Amino acid sequence: MSTQELATLLVSCPDKKGLVAALAQLLYGHGCNIIDAGQHSDPDAAQFFQRIRFDMKDLHADRLTLERGIEDVAQRFSMTWQLSYENRRKRVAIFVSKYDHCLYDLLLRHRANELVCDMAMVVSNHEDLRIVAEQFAVPFHVFNMTKDNKREQEEKQWELLDQYGIDLIVMARYMQILSAAFTTRYPNRIINIHHSFLPAFTGGKPYHRAYERGVKLIGATAHYATSELDEGPIIEQDVIRTSHRDSVHDLVRKGRDLEKVALARAVKWHVEDRILVHANKTVVFD
Amino acid sequence: MSTQELATLLVSCPDKKGLVAALAQLLYGHGCNIIDAGQHSDPDAAQFFQRIRFDMKDLHADRLTLERGIEDVAQRFSMTWQLSYENRRKRVAIFVSKYDHCLYDLLLRHRANELVCDMAMVVSNHEDLRIVAEQFAVPFHVFNMTKDNKREQEEKQWELLDQYGIDLIVMARYMQILSAAFTTRYPNRIINIHHSFLPAFTGGKPYHRAYERGVKLIGATAHYATSELDEGPIIEQDVIRTSHRDSVHDLVRKGRDLEKVALARAVKWHVEDRILVHANKTVVFD
Amino acid sequence: MSTQELATLLVSCPDKKGLVAALAQLLYGHGCNIIDAGQHSDPDAAQFFQRIRFDMKDLHADRLTLERGIEDVAQRFSMTWQLSYENRRKRVAIFVSKYDHCLYDLLLRHRANELVCDMAMVVSNHEDLRIVAEQFAVPFHVFNMTKDNKREQEEKQWELLDQYGIDLIVMARYMQILSAAFTTRYPNRIINIHHSFLPAFTGGKPYHRAYERGVKLIGATAHYATSELDEGPIIEQDVIRTSHRDSVHDLVRKGRDLEKVALARAVKWHVEDRILVHANKTVVFD
Amino acid sequence: MSTQELATLLVSCPDKKGLVAALAQLLYGHGCNIIDAGQHSDPDAAQFFQRIRFDMKDLHADRLTLERGIEDVAQRFSMTWQLSYENRRKRVAIFVSKYDHCLYDLLLRHRANELVCDMAMVVSNHEDLRIVAEQFAVPFHVFNMTKDNKREQEEKQWELLDQYGIDLIVMARYMQILSAAFTTRYPNRIINIHHSFLPAFTGGKPYHRAYERGVKLIGATAHYATSELDEGPIIEQDVIRTSHRDSVHDLVRKGRDLEKVALARAVKWHVEDRILVHANKTVVFD
Repeated sequence: MSTQELATLLVSCPDKKGLVAALAQLLYGHGCNIIDAGQHSDPDAAQFFQRIRFDMKDLHADRLTLERGIEDVAQRFSMTWQLSYENRRKRVAIFVSKYDHCLYDLLLRHRANELVCDMAMVVSNHEDLRIVAEQFAVPFHVFNMTKDNKREQEEKQWELLDQYGIDLIVMARYMQILSAAFTTRYPNRIINIHHSFLPAFTGGKPYHRAYERGVKLIGATAHYATSELDEGPIIEQDVIRTSHRDSVHDLVRKGRDLEKVALARAVKWHVEDRILVHANKTVVFD
Repeated sequence: MSTQELATLLVSCPDKKGLVAALAQLLYGHGCNIIDAGQHSDPDAAQFFQRIRFDMKDLHADRLTLERGIEDVAQRFSMTWQLSYENRRKRVAIFVSKYDHCLYDLLLRHRANELVCDMAMVVSNHEDLRIVAEQFAVPFHVFNMTKDNKREQEEKQWELLDQYGIDLIVMARYMQILSAAFTTRYPNRIINIHHSFLPAFTGGKPYHRAYERGVKLIGATAHYATSELDEGPIIEQDVIRTSHRDSVHDLVRKGRDLEKVALARAVKWHVEDRILVHANKTVVFD
Repeated sequence: MSTQELATLLVSCPDKKGLVAALAQLLYGHGCNIIDAGQHSDPDAAQFFQRIRFDMKDLHADRLTLERGIEDVAQRFSMTWQLSYENRRKRVAIFVSKYDHCLYDLLLRHRANELVCDMAMVVSNHEDLRIVAEQFAVPFHVFNMTKDNKREQEEKQWELLDQYGIDLIVMARYMQILSAAFTTRYPNRIINIHHSFLPAFTGGKPYHRAYERGVKLIGATAHYATSELDEGPIIEQDVIRTSHRDSVHDLVRKGRDLEKVALARAVKWHVEDRILVHANKTVVFD
Repeated sequence: MSTQELATLLVSCPDKKGLVAALAQLLYGHGCNIIDAGQHSDPDAAQFFQRIRFDMKDLHADRLTLERGIEDVAQRFSMTWQLSYENRRKRVAIFVSKYDHCLYDLLLRHRANELVCDMAMVVSNHEDLRIVAEQFAVPFHVFNMTKDNKREQEEKQWELLDQYGIDLIVMARYMQILSAAFTTRYPNRIINIHHSFLPAFTGGKPYHRAYERGVKLIGATAHYATSELDEGPIIEQDVIRTSHRDSVHDLVRKGRDLEKVALARAVKWHVEDRILVHANKTVVFD
């Protein structure tokens, strides 16, 4: 395997005959070997989505030539596309506040090679979790947030993120609401996790309300953050059974486990270029 | 087993020391052998719930004496209680419209002895499912419903239900909204099933909206019907995974499977006297 | 949608560069529009698998020409391939004995259009389920099986299956062991369902043994039947939680639910041409 | 809540009339208030099991008197019983080798108060995980194991375990087989975790064999260790879906997640006195 040079191409465009052939032909023509491909046509949106993972160790020319070739096809079919080279790992910033369960989970999975990316930094509005970041040798940056300094602190965060070439922001229970300017700046590049219930409860203290309502399931949803709170494209959801024996404390505990696994899966799929977004909806090639 | 004479006692009351001993002592004193018991104390509501299943084949006196004994203890502890004798099966009316999946599921489970009750009748606002009821030799009654005759038709339904001593009404995808007078007449004796989503979608065409939102899970909730639509005490919930590959049609199909199993479990628990309700919340001794 | 003419191509061959391009180009060249495609490369077996679903309403020539074109590509890449036209439904024979849960489940799903195939016949070694088949207007054939007549009865079954052009045999709790000659005659065309446990129990009365062992989960496995009993390629598996409160009777009841859903999914995937088999292992494009 | 003094009584005995009343009466007579009680009768084994959680803040006499009272009832009914006081936390030793996922998971859950016990020590046959134990301020003891020193090293381990009053040993992926003398010394006090498959694979490299067989589910089983390897009473099991897209590496990764959650639940139930064992089978009052 070590001799492979893998890359992943994600494309999205209006559905049209000949698309698959054009892309497959292009890659073949450049000496690439398709390892894995997933494809989806949304009949309602008349939209086509494809993920192609290929080996370029026998690439005839150089990467620039390949990219130019893809761009030619892309223009012909009005495609948006994104090409990721495996040897250029995505750089991730984890945003946290005081809860440590998602942070530990992500850092441990990263160390176990489940998440193939660079954990470039942990960003927080509190000092509390510095010790965790340091145990994993990840730089830790604190931005103290008040009612009045949000705009300027966010701008400093952007500067830092840009400076370190961050590709993905993971809100691992970061208890601050990002401004619309923030989410707009990183479209489909911020992943958030929040609890979910059937039925949904709006307003505060949702676990208390779920407890009062006697729900038999609680859930968690990982999604891309948009300017509309918790309304961005859903990446992953999971649930766990609950019963009358569960106290509010038990619901919160079970919720933590859900948050960890749903967030970890969403991050894994993102860094492996498995997610395409169209019209507030994801296509996940898992 | 055939020589057992089983009964089930359900009690609910403010929590108080000595409760468990008093009930256990009472049953022992009458010659009853406790086979199975579940108990729950809700610390917030300071409420006590218990389900006791016992064998009365060695009952010292008669049933009336036993019931009088229970009533004595009940008054001492401000209990509400309900005693069911296994040889007096609950009588069930299934309400349906045109969808047959829940109806078939219930009738087949009944025939397989999974639901130990009498399927006394099927009630519908349409003729369509008469053939199904007849295949299982269950009487089928049609009440044609219009905008104008609802009140009078419901009254005729009550008359029928009373005449046949119906204990439980199961709304197996009955596409009529029961009046508040109806639900009030049968408190915690009407079970309904409906789809559930994370997040929840209010308004019409929920499967279309779930599809547009790209949810990764869909669910179903079985609950007791109250005058507030779909807001009654939840008995059971279940979910199934969905993906971008699922069309609206697929979501509806998966939803049918969920509706069947969640409804069947709720009915099973009810006819086995496993459910207690307090403050719009169920305690289920499963 | 009604104006589409859909077909599904399944191919399997040693992995080789240019495969995807060649097939996509071929279909495009004949005027076909790829609707959906799944592909998998097994790196250990160095084997390539693809399922292509396409619309041929604008086919330039006729079906024969298309098939000849596919055969050309197939020979170049040592492919085995199979092309199914949607307007030629697969013909299914359901084999049963006395248990009716899987039979009802399949017939109801068929009627609800979840299983798009022809339910051509029900075959049994007992008369018991004739009434079920008749309710769904499916021909019912009885072959009385004894120790001595197995070979000759199976031969009569083959004759019947051939006469009616049966594509798939579903063993819906058929309590007879098919001879090796039978399974060899219909490779990857017989689907069986059986219970599964962790740990596995060999020998008789597995539910009793699972009960004695106090398992916390029971499962069911749907697989293609081969001459080695229960050792054929696995198509689908599912499990359900159990507890100390479950009697053997409860385990059997829960097992029935598992058998129904696992078998129904396997049949659905087969009739939708979603399954490829290689080296006793399935690739399922779900 | 802080003013409660909770205790948990676990009893097991041949089933007999009057049992429940006798225990309830006894506790009531001593001024104890039953908070929660679970009970189970195994009809085949004719065995009775009960877990009673009660508040003794209004205890009339002292603990010794209470215990003597329980012993009286116990002798009358041939009970085995165990009484745990909540303010005397169970002392746990975690045994590990080189894998860190279960160790981290247990230590993090302990820190988050999900596991209410004392993490008294980590024992290992390697130095590798010392750094993890130290991050959580848990003493770390290494016992180098060779073919020849097993007996003497185990004896030293027993000495250490006794010295620190260890109540529970958790084998969190400890890659040594305990001797029969070891498991016999701590009956139902050693919890082990191992992978499980449907069907089961005996012998080495089970993940490779599961991969070759194309299983659609993998599982994990937490159980009490006995002298018969992996055959002790099952406490908890869980599974996760797999597919043809999963490599052996993916199966191992998914297996790690299962091992963590199944082991954590088993440990939680043990330290909360929720588990009773009878005839190689557990009753879990969850």
